[in-house]
Amino acid sequence: MGNDDFDARLGALRDGQEKLLARRNEQVAPGNGIYSRWRYPVITPGHVPLHWRYDLDPADNPFLMERIGVNATFNAGAILHRERFTLVVRVEGVDRKSWFAVAESDSGTDGFRFRPRPIAMPELDSPDTNIYDMRLTEHEDGYIYGLFCTERKDESNPGDTSAAIAACGIARTTDLDDWERLPDLVTNSAQQRNCVLHPEFVDGRYAIYTRPQDGFVGVGNGGGIGWGLTDSMENAVVADETIVDPKVYHTISELKNGQGPAPLRTDEGWLHLAHGVRETAAGLRYVLYMFMTDRDEPWKVTRRPAGHLIAPRGAERVGDVSNVVFSGGWIRDTDGTVYIYYASSDTRLHVATTSVDRLLDYCRNTPADGRRSAGSVAAVNALIDKNASCKPGQ
Amino acid sequence: MGNDDFDARLGALRDGQEKLLARRNEQVAPGNGIYSRWRYPVITPGHVPLHWRYDLDPADNPFLMERIGVNATFNAGAILHRERFTLVVRVEGVDRKSWFAVAESDSGTDGFRFRPRPIAMPELDSPDTNIYDMRLTEHEDGYIYGLFCTERKDESNPGDTSAAIAACGIARTTDLDDWERLPDLVTNSAQQRNCVLHPEFVDGRYAIYTRPQDGFVGVGNGGGIGWGLTDSMENAVVADETIVDPKVYHTISELKNGQGPAPLRTDEGWLHLAHGVRETAAGLRYVLYMFMTDRDEPWKVTRRPAGHLIAPRGAERVGDVSNVVFSGGWIRDTDGTVYIYYASSDTRLHVATTSVDRLLDYCRNTPADGRRSAGSVAAVNALIDKNASCKPGQ
Repeated sequence: MGNDDFDARLGALRDGQEKLLARRNEQVAPGNGIYSRWRYPVITPGHVPLHWRYDLDPADNPFLMERIGVNATFNAGAILHRERFTLVVRVEGVDRKSWFAVAESDSGTDGFRFRPRPIAMPELDSPDTNIYDMRLTEHEDGYIYGLFCTERKDESNPGDTSAAIAACGIARTTDLDDWERLPDLVTNSAQQRNCVLHPEFVDGRYAIYTRPQDGFVGVGNGGGIGWGLTDSMENAVVADETIVDPKVYHTISELKNGQGPAPLRTDEGWLHLAHGVRETAAGLRYVLYMFMTDRDEPWKVTRRPAGHLIAPRGAERVGDVSNVVFSGGWIRDTDGTVYIYYASSDTRLHVATTSVDRLLDYCRNTPADGRRSAGSVAAVNALIDKNASCKPGQ
Repeated sequence: MGNDDFDARLGALRDGQEKLLARRNEQVAPGNGIYSRWRYPVITPGHVPLHWRYDLDPADNPFLMERIGVNATFNAGAILHRERFTLVVRVEGVDRKSWFAVAESDSGTDGFRFRPRPIAMPELDSPDTNIYDMRLTEHEDGYIYGLFCTERKDESNPGDTSAAIAACGIARTTDLDDWERLPDLVTNSAQQRNCVLHPEFVDGRYAIYTRPQDGFVGVGNGGGIGWGLTDSMENAVVADETIVDPKVYHTISELKNGQGPAPLRTDEGWLHLAHGVRETAAGLRYVLYMFMTDRDEPWKVTRRPAGHLIAPRGAERVGDVSNVVFSGGWIRDTDGTVYIYYASSDTRLHVATTSVDRLLDYCRNTPADGRRSAGSVAAVNALIDKNASCKPGQ
């Protein structure tokens, strides 16, 4: 390939990326009224800067080949930072290792661009094999905390090359560029995933949502979204875990569940976004659901609308790990708009928009789970009766 | 949201649904000659009436949000009832609970509309957690029977929130609105699914197709499509199960299989539609196949064309449980046309059309399973030779 070809190819790559980054997103109407999907993913591997992936020197890379492939961009933490919609994206290379990179946008629904470099997360004495799914919390102590999953080989099973141990890694920052790594969370559970720091002190202590589990993938007889307190984040120890929201037979979180982003505080209590998992004949299915907890006692559920809020739809259904939606980040804008950043099928990141008012209305007025088919039919019939009596919109 | 916005949104929802319900379906040509697919699904969640899902009172639901979300519509029983194509649809809410609702059409291929309310299925002393996959049989005793799966928590495994027990629920009706619930079927198997009532008495007794299984998902060493007799449907007991069509190594029903709808009687014997399941690296794969049984001894297979009749194709391949086609209902019209109602990937319901004559020809003339690759090659070569000797169409 001559220099002209190199330049032409580079030009095509740059034009393609610029077009992608400049693409305006569109709300999908009419939706279900609870939230709106947006037509295009907000972050894809195509958003990752070319100079992170390509050696741009024609002498060393005459074919202009991708040197470091990016496989997927998903499960981001989210924060409104310096008035910009800011994501800490899970970037997964073709080597299957994940790492974090910050992307920012002014609109929250399009135009996300990565900062100059990925996050160089400091390591502990026991290095992380893989780090992913950071939840961001702007804590009232003044730091931004990132709690994420760190995985290391399970050395008790040397022959099993899939056996791993998942723990909660902890780091803090003020600018999202420089991170101070703190020791991993210590709990009584064999493994931990989906840990999230509550934004406020509770009785002067830090509060952490946990997800105790017996094994690496299966939660076993553990599971549920837990809650515990620690005196310090520099040596975070949760000695007791209370189950806030258990997994329940024949619900959307029958097999396992986990807290999504840090909850949003409202006058009526805390709004929680979480994921629920069930088994199917074609593998696990991950959906998103909501619940509310008491404003002063955030470990007590006050509202729990039945079923899922967001499930995979259309092109979201298929990806590296199909039939999955997952969220570790949402942003409440100053006007009350809520931006839910959810990934589909471990492959790309989307946004759905709603508002605090809508989410409160949803949690208040959606029937709770009747726990059996007859309960669901009763709820439908009650709605039919209500609509018959009020002669709506006629 | 003001009243104008509410009304505009309601108008958009109503227009969208009316357009969906009025959409004419189209046969997909040329097909394989055995049956024709139709372009659009016949029932989707969008077909479920708005007033079953939305509180339509602007005072109580100012954002016009969906209060009771419908996740999927699939696996319907089917019957020609009062000269209308009538389906008892499995409707699954976002809460994962399924229930039944009747939808009717004049064409059988489009224009399905739900009756005013879902079916309020009576419960037994031990309530159903989930009910689904009803098979309808117009029995010569004068009743329409619905046999369906009822699931309840497996209380022997309290810590395992996925452990359930599946049994055959039984109900009967004359109008599809009011149902008399009868005791669940009693058999010697730990669990039962895919039970179907044969439409005629056999030796003065009721005959039921069964699917004995050891566990909730796996059939274990049991399995196959069974057959047994009971003196009464008011206390249905099948003491002995004969296996009509066993599961067989390296066929489309290697892992498990089950009767689809009640069989269709012809002069040559009974036409059966069934599903077969095999394991893949991406989970189970469900396809539909056919066989015929003797007219007087319906537990004896007389024809068994090799392989599947219908497998997931195109958009059918992906859904809540991907790689699945399943049928619990078909309708023979008075002119001999057969409407096969099959669901794809536990998400939406489709129709395929054929005729009794075509299905008999298919069962008569499709080679049987040769049980190994060389047998399949021999069958192809025999067909090539036959075509060489007759110079068809030339």
